[in-house]
Amino acid sequence: MKAKIITIGDEILIGQTLNTNAAFIGEKLVENGIDVSESVVIGDNEESILKEFKNAFENNDLIIVTGGLGPTHDDLTLDCIVKFFNTELVESEEVLNDIKTIFEKRGRKLTPSNIEQAKVPKIADIIRNHNGTAPGTWIEKDGKIFISLPGVPFEMKEMVTGYIIPRLSEKLTVEKNRRIIKSLLTTGIPESYLYERLGDLDELLQGNALAFLPSQFGVRLRITVVGEDADDAENQLTRIEQQIRAKVGQYIYGTENDTLEEVVAKLLIDRGLTIAVAESCTGGLISNRLTNVSGSSKYFERGFITYSNGAKVELLKIDEDLLIKYGAVSLEVARLMAEGVKAVSGTDIGIAATGIMGPTGATFDKPVGLVYIGFCDSKICTAREFRFGDDRLLNKDRTSQAALDMIRRNLLGIEYED
Amino acid sequence: MKAKIITIGDEILIGQTLNTNAAFIGEKLVENGIDVSESVVIGDNEESILKEFKNAFENNDLIIVTGGLGPTHDDLTLDCIVKFFNTELVESEEVLNDIKTIFEKRGRKLTPSNIEQAKVPKIADIIRNHNGTAPGTWIEKDGKIFISLPGVPFEMKEMVTGYIIPRLSEKLTVEKNRRIIKSLLTTGIPESYLYERLGDLDELLQGNALAFLPSQFGVRLRITVVGEDADDAENQLTRIEQQIRAKVGQYIYGTENDTLEEVVAKLLIDRGLTIAVAESCTGGLISNRLTNVSGSSKYFERGFITYSNGAKVELLKIDEDLLIKYGAVSLEVARLMAEGVKAVSGTDIGIAATGIMGPTGATFDKPVGLVYIGFCDSKICTAREFRFGDDRLLNKDRTSQAALDMIRRNLLGIEYED
Repeated sequence: MKAKIITIGDEILIGQTLNTNAAFIGEKLVENGIDVSESVVIGDNEESILKEFKNAFENNDLIIVTGGLGPTHDDLTLDCIVKFFNTELVESEEVLNDIKTIFEKRGRKLTPSNIEQAKVPKIADIIRNHNGTAPGTWIEKDGKIFISLPGVPFEMKEMVTGYIIPRLSEKLTVEKNRRIIKSLLTTGIPESYLYERLGDLDELLQGNALAFLPSQFGVRLRITVVGEDADDAENQLTRIEQQIRAKVGQYIYGTENDTLEEVVAKLLIDRGLTIAVAESCTGGLISNRLTNVSGSSKYFERGFITYSNGAKVELLKIDEDLLIKYGAVSLEVARLMAEGVKAVSGTDIGIAATGIMGPTGATFDKPVGLVYIGFCDSKICTAREFRFGDDRLLNKDRTSQAALDMIRRNLLGIEYED
Repeated sequence: MKAKIITIGDEILIGQTLNTNAAFIGEKLVENGIDVSESVVIGDNEESILKEFKNAFENNDLIIVTGGLGPTHDDLTLDCIVKFFNTELVESEEVLNDIKTIFEKRGRKLTPSNIEQAKVPKIADIIRNHNGTAPGTWIEKDGKIFISLPGVPFEMKEMVTGYIIPRLSEKLTVEKNRRIIKSLLTTGIPESYLYERLGDLDELLQGNALAFLPSQFGVRLRITVVGEDADDAENQLTRIEQQIRAKVGQYIYGTENDTLEEVVAKLLIDRGLTIAVAESCTGGLISNRLTNVSGSSKYFERGFITYSNGAKVELLKIDEDLLIKYGAVSLEVARLMAEGVKAVSGTDIGIAATGIMGPTGATFDKPVGLVYIGFCDSKICTAREFRFGDDRLLNKDRTSQAALDMIRRNLLGIEYED
């Protein structure tokens, strides 16, 4: 089965909104053994939409369209579907009830434009929207499937996982497990170093594929194997993964869509440990990430954002003389911050970050991107220096990632190489 | 001039990486009066890449390709360019020097795969990469422009703004200002309410366009006017913007790519005010956003993430009896947290958030999505209730946005409507 994803919306084309929908749908299709041939973005323009519907319908078995189903005048998708399939719109009582329920729950009054959204193409099956007002539709014609979904990400996602994938899965049983895609997530090592470390890729892969995908959080290693059958694919994947782990395993913190905060959260919960955070340069980002995990109150006790020197002295009980002697951005102060936050919070672990995120704040001997991260638990109080780049927000991301990785390494007893 | 954006990479197609590059390039082109006809994503496959190059080159004046220029085996773009333009690769001394400089700065050793990246197509102009190892290339042929850029976002962005837009601008002088696009950024009002408030859109727009673009941070109103000439376009835009502001101005916090944290930062700096933050449910996100703005040390004094009740009592000096009486998630405790953090920090303003972000934590009378935000300055100590949705991370975003908006409204003296 060959699929095409069509995203409708000027806001995507002109870059005001990121195309998270195509990414999510692409991922879900591939996970379920469906090839995505292409993903295309077109504007809110009837002619372009109809032209793309025709082209996609001719060359694919499955077409998934998102966007343009809202209650306002610039939403054209439904009209285009009606024209393309030569059908008509009919009011659905089921959809109208869903819309009423949503508005009651939020304590808001229904507007006429919302009621208009209860109309759906006559030939379509309805995909109910539990999180918003625009329903999805599923049309089958000439042995092909044409699906339309709202553009609001959390509405669309629930329809994909709750309805579309289960219904598509009924149609797909063969082929599915012959191809396996698995990602190993690394952090703390550059792409080119990883590449050199892995050595001869032909020997490692034996006809399978490996992609290197860098971001400020690290490099994702995506392995794609295609076996003779499901067992063969599984065996090949296991062999490749083991060889990669033997060479760079210490840098691998997770797989697939794991986040480092989830990995750290699990380690903390498994060991029954609590943590407190002292942040200067990251301004709350480390704490924010640690509390992005549901159930974080089990391990996260408190956090301090000690931006000013006064706050560092007062809240973390850092000796003011030492702060002046070493400077706020120093190995010593990072360690003292971690030690201080652990002590004042009464937690098992303290983690701390101080650095120069840029674009301003650099001094003669302390450039933008210079960061110190401190870690303290019952066994050790330590700190490390990192050198990142010039971009403030990327530097915050990188610092938070290095701090979470320092927790991971210390909990797992993995020493740094240098 | 008609442009097409081609993004190369399986990781984008299968949803492992968001296509931020196409968004950024689309935005920059449209800002400079270049129409983006379509944006397409294709996989790391020589046949697909060559087919798409051909198709794009036939139907557009400008083609911008990103991705596939890295140092590893799955990077095919350069080989495809060489084949498509029937040229060859030659080593560039300039590029090799840039690569050496980058590695020296990071204190890392050069690998053979990095040196390989100094090769560029013979017929291309080089676009230097100041942030990474892969250079961009600019090829002109048959009156058309074909540009290739690395896929790493911050490398690509600097090349677009520093080289491509200036060089393209030389070729574009007419037409540019006849079309103006402007966005007004609203928060705190749903899309359908905005739509109803704005009344008769035909009367408002008089042939121009208005798009409603909702996200968890609010609704972006994007106005597109096309005038007889630049002056006419400017006049029409002014009229439309004034009418929108007259109807929903209190919800508009900024324009274009403003963030609410930047708007709040400017208000605080202009008034010489300092702020301290007490966060429970947002876990550091409000502080993180307030410190995303360069120069935030001027106004941001400190932040507390008081996740546990103990931390609320100990750090914010909240009366434990009141905490037990009202519960941690309550209007009263939000107000006390704001009052407490202001007092203990000695700042002009205190802002606080407490709520149930989900998916767990709900009680019989306190559902997931229930949030209280407290604000305290020299004139007023107040709190408000908000009801958001079911998704933890979206709820954190919405809460941080509502908190920043409460600062904005209080500083500007804009009262809430209900």
